[in-house]
Amino acid sequence: MNFNTDFTPLTVDPDKIYDYSFSIIEEEMGEHSFTDDQWKVVRRVIHASADFELGRSVMFTPDAIEAGIQSILAGRHVIADVQMIESGSGRKRFQKHGGDLHCYIADPDVAKEAKEQNTTRAIISMQKAVRENEGGIYAIGNAPTALLELIRLIKEGVAKPDLIIGMPVGFVSAAESKAELAKLEGIPFITNVGRKGGSTVTVAALNAISILADERAKK
Amino acid sequence: MNFNTDFTPLTVDPDKIYDYSFSIIEEEMGEHSFTDDQWKVVRRVIHASADFELGRSVMFTPDAIEAGIQSILAGRHVIADVQMIESGSGRKRFQKHGGDLHCYIADPDVAKEAKEQNTTRAIISMQKAVRENEGGIYAIGNAPTALLELIRLIKEGVAKPDLIIGMPVGFVSAAESKAELAKLEGIPFITNVGRKGGSTVTVAALNAISILADERAKK
Repeated sequence: MNFNTDFTPLTVDPDKIYDYSFSIIEEEMGEHSFTDDQWKVVRRVIHASADFELGRSVMFTPDAIEAGIQSILAGRHVIADVQMIESGSGRKRFQKHGGDLHCYIADPDVAKEAKEQNTTRAIISMQKAVRENEGGIYAIGNAPTALLELIRLIKEGVAKPDLIIGMPVGFVSAAESKAELAKLEGIPFITNVGRKGGSTVTVAALNAISILADERAKK
Repeated sequence: MNFNTDFTPLTVDPDKIYDYSFSIIEEEMGEHSFTDDQWKVVRRVIHASADFELGRSVMFTPDAIEAGIQSILAGRHVIADVQMIESGSGRKRFQKHGGDLHCYIADPDVAKEAKEQNTTRAIISMQKAVRENEGGIYAIGNAPTALLELIRLIKEGVAKPDLIIGMPVGFVSAAESKAELAKLEGIPFITNVGRKGGSTVTVAALNAISILADERAKK
């Protein structure tokens, strides 16, 4: 396939850029065993990272996507571990279904409590999120300590998210935190194997779910 | 090297997590030909992506880091193509040197003009950035069209950034836009080869430069 013929006009139409990117991703990905809806999530993860290896490392519980769609349509809230996810995904896409998107990491009370307890703001922000929200989607793309704390709160019976999108990146605890998530029972999740991940791919997965929710709402 | 002995206490001390990550990256990277300051940038790019291939693909003009430091210390402004970079890097680190961080992509006048001209908001936001700022650092991590437009404005003699950090990600025009940047003469830049990149690694490079500027200011 040669896409170069009308390269210049294509590059400035945002919708066409997406379609065009997805067609390249489809072609280069080749065979895989994701379901149709899972592939819509993985395709966006690859789009945001240009990394097929990362795309292939994504794992879903069978109920994950449906749980995410239902959570958004029910107007439950989305919690992001870092502000990059909040700004990358945007609050509007959840507000239109009656929900909202929150990130507590920069809250002054979170910073104060983390300092007092000599721990990370990520951990304290998860505790605050669980206190302030019923269920909801947790999108964690940066802080392994946030994901580990959320898992601890679930095991203690304090937290019961509708869905966890847990894809922190890094060299210390990131892969380990995701391996812990992969062992979790009774909570729908999307995660990936290994060190790679991050805010941009977490936003990609979250946005893919929100687009599926929009499509469902139109039916 | 075995880091597992005191795994749990280490994971909650933010400074130690960084040190620990960097020591793992040092060890696994092996030989390379980056200068000491360049390595401080690349190390953060690897830290943000867990991707050594991406780290090794980073390129610098010889004057790039010094130009970035001088620009920040002179209180010149930083322009981000997307809000994820604005929130990921934060305005405070530039405000303390008299500058600021701007992102014009969500401005209503930018959206209006893009619609009228049937082009991307990214392109119009670069035109606005060049009109409103003298020199400065352009951190472009998402939109190839923003980078291509900035290069066009430079060639037309309208724009003269102090430094371009150009690392957009994607399948349509991303690699091509970075190849265009790599051919640019007379403007310091940091970029990388290939499709990979994105907001998180652009933030990582920008933050590394701002930390070097802080160190310089203390001397």
